[in-house]
Amino acid sequence: MNYHVGVISGDGIGPEVVAEAQKVLDAIGAKFGHTFTYDAILMGGCSIDATGVPLTDEAIAQAKASDAVLMGSIGGNTATSPWYKLAPHLRPEAGLLKLRKALNLFANLRPAYLYEELKEACPLRDDIIGDGFDMMIMRELTGGLYFGARKTEEVNGVMTAVDTLTYTEDEIRRIAKRGFDIAMKRRKKVTSVDKANVLDSSRLWRKVVEEVAKDYPKVTYEHMLVDNCAMQLVKDPKQFDVILTENMFGDILSDEASMVTGSIGMLSSASLNDTKFGLYEPSGGSAPDIAGKGIANPIATILSAAMMLRYSFDLDKEADAVEAAVKQVLKDGYRTIDIMPQEEDKKASVTQVGTKQMGDLICERI
Amino acid sequence: MNYHVGVISGDGIGPEVVAEAQKVLDAIGAKFGHTFTYDAILMGGCSIDATGVPLTDEAIAQAKASDAVLMGSIGGNTATSPWYKLAPHLRPEAGLLKLRKALNLFANLRPAYLYEELKEACPLRDDIIGDGFDMMIMRELTGGLYFGARKTEEVNGVMTAVDTLTYTEDEIRRIAKRGFDIAMKRRKKVTSVDKANVLDSSRLWRKVVEEVAKDYPKVTYEHMLVDNCAMQLVKDPKQFDVILTENMFGDILSDEASMVTGSIGMLSSASLNDTKFGLYEPSGGSAPDIAGKGIANPIATILSAAMMLRYSFDLDKEADAVEAAVKQVLKDGYRTIDIMPQEEDKKASVTQVGTKQMGDLICERI
Ligand SMILES: CC(C)[C@H](C(=O)O)[C@@H](O)C(=O)O
Ligand SMILES: CC(C)[C@H](C(=O)O)[C@@H](O)C(=O)O
Repeated sequence: MNYHVGVISGDGIGPEVVAEAQKVLDAIGAKFGHTFTYDAILMGGCSIDATGVPLTDEAIAQAKASDAVLMGSIGGNTATSPWYKLAPHLRPEAGLLKLRKALNLFANLRPAYLYEELKEACPLRDDIIGDGFDMMIMRELTGGLYFGARKTEEVNGVMTAVDTLTYTEDEIRRIAKRGFDIAMKRRKKVTSVDKANVLDSSRLWRKVVEEVAKDYPKVTYEHMLVDNCAMQLVKDPKQFDVILTENMFGDILSDEASMVTGSIGMLSSASLNDTKFGLYEPSGGSAPDIAGKGIANPIATILSAAMMLRYSFDLDKEADAVEAAVKQVLKDGYRTIDIMPQEEDKKASVTQVGTKQMGDLICERI
Repeated sequence: MNYHVGVISGDGIGPEVVAEAQKVLDAIGAKFGHTFTYDAILMGGCSIDATGVPLTDEAIAQAKASDAVLMGSIGGNTATSPWYKLAPHLRPEAGLLKLRKALNLFANLRPAYLYEELKEACPLRDDIIGDGFDMMIMRELTGGLYFGARKTEEVNGVMTAVDTLTYTEDEIRRIAKRGFDIAMKRRKKVTSVDKANVLDSSRLWRKVVEEVAKDYPKVTYEHMLVDNCAMQLVKDPKQFDVILTENMFGDILSDEASMVTGSIGMLSSASLNDTKFGLYEPSGGSAPDIAGKGIANPIATILSAAMMLRYSFDLDKEADAVEAAVKQVLKDGYRTIDIMPQEEDKKASVTQVGTKQMGDLICERI
């Protein structure tokens, strides 16, 4: 079959890692008899440079016309300005937020999985890691502080900035259902994270999660305060199966959780709406400091492509093949710099490779 | 001299740990010729049980009349209700928030220090820990989402909850100054944490921090996004000296940082205003699961009392004596359960003790 994939290479390391994911998709196509056609979509700093805005209506239309979108990363300086000097709605990131909203991508899945082979790259002690982790963060992606009204203005002669955190019960219900649905396919445990001892939005969150939980009697669920969760992720990450949380808390906790997997370069993600459509992107940023050096880890993007095969195209066998190839390449001892073992004496037992080589090695194993 | 200390024992493990800190203060008094008189102040669940509200006006007046306040912890169920069934302004935590605001305690200092002796209790690998950490979190405590307007109401038939995140430039300036002041007495590095790629309040934060930084040419400062900071605290915590951040981010990051010190039971805190007055409390919660068992770690509260001696009473020598006694007791191999080594084979080399015994052992070393 033919699949039409929108491709947002984006900024920084984006183009480098996306190229490797496309190579892997093509290898899958060759092996399993599919074709993937690609439509390049401009977004972020590169769109600002080309069009003056981070996301044009045309780009949104292109994304909507695709079967799914594969993305690299967005952010950093443009050709003409450092990002922080741009008006907020004209910043690279504004394009991403606008696209998430325009496509109603409310469910952001971030699987944090520690590959056996990467234990040595994980900053946590062996006795904390044990047999590793395999957890899923289900982050609400189109509500909360990210999309509330905001303004900065002078009030009685003093500059005052306001952001608004809003959630409706419907927004909470649909993400909670997704969280419980995915838990049913996993170890059947949901940890819903909020700050209900302070926030009204968290109290509503907790109430709706409790209602939704009634429809999933087989799932064990608990509430956890966000400060405690940030602590537990380091203290005992194995306790988690699915973490269900709102937009800002999910942003913070998923970056933290990436560390238990060894590197943010391993963290894939899928942003889904109510259809089969999805946007697939690594959880990490554009990493301008290493852009163009050919050393970025393409695995998060390649695993995001695998999620695309699975969630948007129902190609489970093909997704399995990508994941198995990644596992094999790690087993065979290949590492990008971010997942090299931490301890000096263990470095000799693996081979450090660059972005392209890692992509090639994965393709060879498909 | 005589010092008049307001004492909020609070809920859960609060009374147990505060009793030990008072014992330590008395030992300091005996040795250095001071007297500490104590005034018991009701706040939290115990206040709800006694008066129907978490903090009475009388309690606020008592706190204001003290030279400083020593606190245990607040939170959990009351005699009549689980906390989440209480109206928000009638919850135990509401007392604490009201007191912080009434006393204008905008500057919350949370030192995260890894004692050499506790390396084995830290979940991070030895090569990440290295020679340990010594960092300070400067958290803004009377603004942001904690104190903005909030409401839950039906909008077009759908329950909708709203919280507001507001900061004025004055609020940001005064906490930023505190952060840079404290950096001047330390390793002269400030990491200001925000989410300026999304929030207006964070953009104002960044702007004001940059203005304040101009007055401290000797301090190196950087901005870091909160998601990245949550990751860096696990990846390379040694990079930090002072983390300067707003209320909610500070809540999350300080709990996370407690893990690099081995246990939240080690994390003291001082909440200060523009005078010598301060509220001193452990950063951890009321831990209802272990309350009454005599196993809670009193060290965070004892170190908070040391901060009181230093910041409110200018008794540096006395504060040093408390800190030295804590160090010595750890060196002598005494541990509460939360700071026992993680690895089985290392447990035999230390002695596990309870709350009271730990307090006694520290007093003996003063
Ligand atoms: C780039 C930024 C706006 C984005 C976010 O905060 O959502 C990123 O950090 C992410 O986690 O996808
Ligand atoms: C009890 C709670 C309201 C409080 C907070 O969130 O500030 C606590 O977590 C803390 O960090 O002091």
